[in-house]
Amino acid sequence: MATSATSATQRALIFTGGQLGDWSISLIQDSDYLIGADRGAFYLVQHGFRPHLALGDFDSIDARQFKQVQDASEECQAYDPIDKDWTDTELAIREAIKRGFKKIKIVGGLGTRFDHSLANVQLLAIADAEGCDASLCDENNEISLLSGPGSRDIEISDRYPVVSLLPMTPVASGITLDGFQYPLNEATLRTGMSLGVSNLLAEPSGTIHLREGRLLVIRCRD
Amino acid sequence: MATSATSATQRALIFTGGQLGDWSISLIQDSDYLIGADRGAFYLVQHGFRPHLALGDFDSIDARQFKQVQDASEECQAYDPIDKDWTDTELAIREAIKRGFKKIKIVGGLGTRFDHSLANVQLLAIADAEGCDASLCDENNEISLLSGPGSRDIEISDRYPVVSLLPMTPVASGITLDGFQYPLNEATLRTGMSLGVSNLLAEPSGTIHLREGRLLVIRCRD
Repeated sequence: MATSATSATQRALIFTGGQLGDWSISLIQDSDYLIGADRGAFYLVQHGFRPHLALGDFDSIDARQFKQVQDASEECQAYDPIDKDWTDTELAIREAIKRGFKKIKIVGGLGTRFDHSLANVQLLAIADAEGCDASLCDENNEISLLSGPGSRDIEISDRYPVVSLLPMTPVASGITLDGFQYPLNEATLRTGMSLGVSNLLAEPSGTIHLREGRLLVIRCRD
Repeated sequence: MATSATSATQRALIFTGGQLGDWSISLIQDSDYLIGADRGAFYLVQHGFRPHLALGDFDSIDARQFKQVQDASEECQAYDPIDKDWTDTELAIREAIKRGFKKIKIVGGLGTRFDHSLANVQLLAIADAEGCDASLCDENNEISLLSGPGSRDIEISDRYPVVSLLPMTPVASGITLDGFQYPLNEATLRTGMSLGVSNLLAEPSGTIHLREGRLLVIRCRD
């Protein structure tokens, strides 16, 4: 298990369900603490990685695959699918927070079931409340949460050129953008307003300022 | 244009981007008022339908396809992609509300870009605020919004057997479920809690009660 001394600086990478691929493997750094949630754990093992922690109800893999995960992981926590109240990804992010990680990245988690996708994105709020720097990404999206009052610097990215802002609270106010193609100055976004969708950086870097509420910062590509 | 006399009872069906397919065509009823947003308009025309209204910036179809849409639609509104503040789907739902429709279904709208998917789902809040019965569906999901205080009856469905509840406000409270496999009684869901994900009906029909806040009711299948 990671000690609190390392976990304060080390990044926890949580592989979960959804569309995983070569792009996800390329994110892994030697220093990462690797957590596999359900099928995400099997994906890591399949690709020759040894998860520090595998967890979930493992209802998306068969018994033979589960045995492989158990054998190849440093630690494995299996939960009863009936009795558990949380999704596997929520179990994983809560365990990462409990173990003291301050940088957490969920890899995958977006797929055809919108309930799973949105629930995974909403998990960023749990990490944010614990003072963690958390994000979720897949091949087409990198999503993080900005809580007001606060600001976020954004570097231009070939991989995810589009920057969209969507409110995660009924109202997000005092939104000012520096360095963007479509500027905003002390703007307010309410649930249902698509004004913040599909912005682009006009300079090599930009900043998003938010006074009140919560914003999802979604970087993506077509 | 639909008169207010008919639009109060007629359903507006908004075809938009994302994954469209045979399942979407099978939703169309003779009595529907058909709106096509951008590529959704072309999809309708391609399949032999005559949209009552086509609208958008049409940046996702080429000039020849746009000509086909213009020729085959009763009415066509083209917007400048640079000057417009709203996505094509927001333009469409606002136009449907303005024309007096009280039943609105967005068809499509979920895809690989999570910003577009979530923005489209959040549009349900605009319709809800205007007293409309609105939903969004694709092949795997049917999503609607429940505002508290209120309740929603749910019939069992082969197509979308799973019922998930996710809060759309920081807190949704007084949630009680009747007829579900995993019951809730006066429960509270906060952003980031996945407790409401993947429920199932235990009886042919069930009811969701909500006292305060907003819940997304997501019916889906694996």
